Amino acid sequence: MTITLPSGKTVRPGKLLCIGRNYVAHVREMGDVSDLPTEPLTFLKPSTALIPSGGTVILPRQSNDVHHELELVVVIGEGGKHISEEDALNHVAGYALGIDVTARDLQAQSKAAKGPWSIAKGFDTFAPLGPITPREKVDDTQALTIELKVNAETRQFGSTANMIFPVAKLVSFLSSVFTLEEGDLIYTGTPEGVGPVRDGDVLEATGTGLQPLLLNVAAESQLAISQA
Amino acid sequence: MTITLPSGKTVRPGKLLCIGRNYVAHVREMGDVSDLPTEPLTFLKPSTALIPSGGTVILPRQSNDVHHELELVVVIGEGGKHISEEDALNHVAGYALGIDVTARDLQAQSKAAKGPWSIAKGFDTFAPLGPITPREKVDDTQALTIELKVNAETRQFGSTANMIFPVAKLVSFLSSVFTLEEGDLIYTGTPEGVGPVRDGDVLEATGTGLQPLLLNVAAESQLAISQA
Repeated sequence: MTITLPSGKTVRPGKLLCIGRNYVAHVREMGDVSDLPTEPLTFLKPSTALIPSGGTVILPRQSNDVHHELELVVVIGEGGKHISEEDALNHVAGYALGIDVTARDLQAQSKAAKGPWSIAKGFDTFAPLGPITPREKVDDTQALTIELKVNAETRQFGSTANMIFPVAKLVSFLSSVFTLEEGDLIYTGTPEGVGPVRDGDVLEATGTGLQPLLLNVAAESQLAISQA
Repeated sequence: MTITLPSGKTVRPGKLLCIGRNYVAHVREMGDVSDLPTEPLTFLKPSTALIPSGGTVILPRQSNDVHHELELVVVIGEGGKHISEEDALNHVAGYALGIDVTARDLQAQSKAAKGPWSIAKGFDTFAPLGPITPREKVDDTQALTIELKVNAETRQFGSTANMIFPVAKLVSFLSSVFTLEEGDLIYTGTPEGVGPVRDGDVLEATGTGLQPLLLNVAAESQLAISQA
């Protein structure tokens, strides 16, 4: 899918950079505080995982435990390499709500094998992204509350004030590894409260000054596969 | 960078899908035969990591142990989802030589933390790709010898006959997770003989019926960073 930047330009995101373990309470609920990172723990999702608000998260048949991870998403405007923390927010075009959909069982298998996470995090529809709010309309990136309701019940409620690595640090750090490009997305990590989603669930994400992200959930049809 | 497909069409690859542990002898040299995979071990590189033949692999200052991993690369032609093994090779546009450049020290740190591999594998210039040979000109994908010389000395020499998961299986498996698109690349794993590359090295990869991949290696300049 393509995204429309605040400038009006339409681009296909080249990179979906995602951050793990960026809220202490989430690290704790995952069962290992010794895993607190000393630098941003980074992984990639493919652009084929993107779906817009109004879309449907498909539960793949390979997993029996797909989780929601509500996140603030940073949309890169002007690209660059080796961007300083001081200059970092000038490279942000806007912000959106996103969900880092995760096949928790497959991720656990990968961790046990000391392997990569790309399959557990990368299935089609595993990167929902809401509409983008321009940077200028967000007062303080590190003082946003974000909330996820599943079937009208609050499951996640957090504040970006609790990020271990704030947005400016993430942009600067990531640009020391990867050339950032216009339209690249940074999924900045999830606060606590992650949990399973099931066939038929309705997800509603909201956040301070951000546009809502609404999603349906459906199981992958075995019939659809055999006909593909 | 963009690539030119055998059809003449120029595209920017949307996904770089990479396979680890696909040759037993390489798994063994990495020190753990118990890690033999039961399905293709998959990770992603970002498109910003691509460089063409004639390019320069930049050794990032964050790593002191950057390794070459010579690989056969599959270029997807017609995309699809849930592609059968029988039909898989019909979705291949062509083949090329590639190197899965890897910061081995950073990968080891990620493994120790049961974390993802995206940084160790994803720096700019870490995905060299040679020119593409059309599928029709490659007789048997599973009977290709591939060789990497570093400063004119052979470092890697292998045969695709020894892949644990052959190309048709990889295409089919990956398409059960990700929608494959025209121009997507599959780095199919490295045979044994991986080792460090250093500032000033010259790499030359060749393979049966494939076009050569020639590369230089240079250390990232600290000066260039402070001026960025």
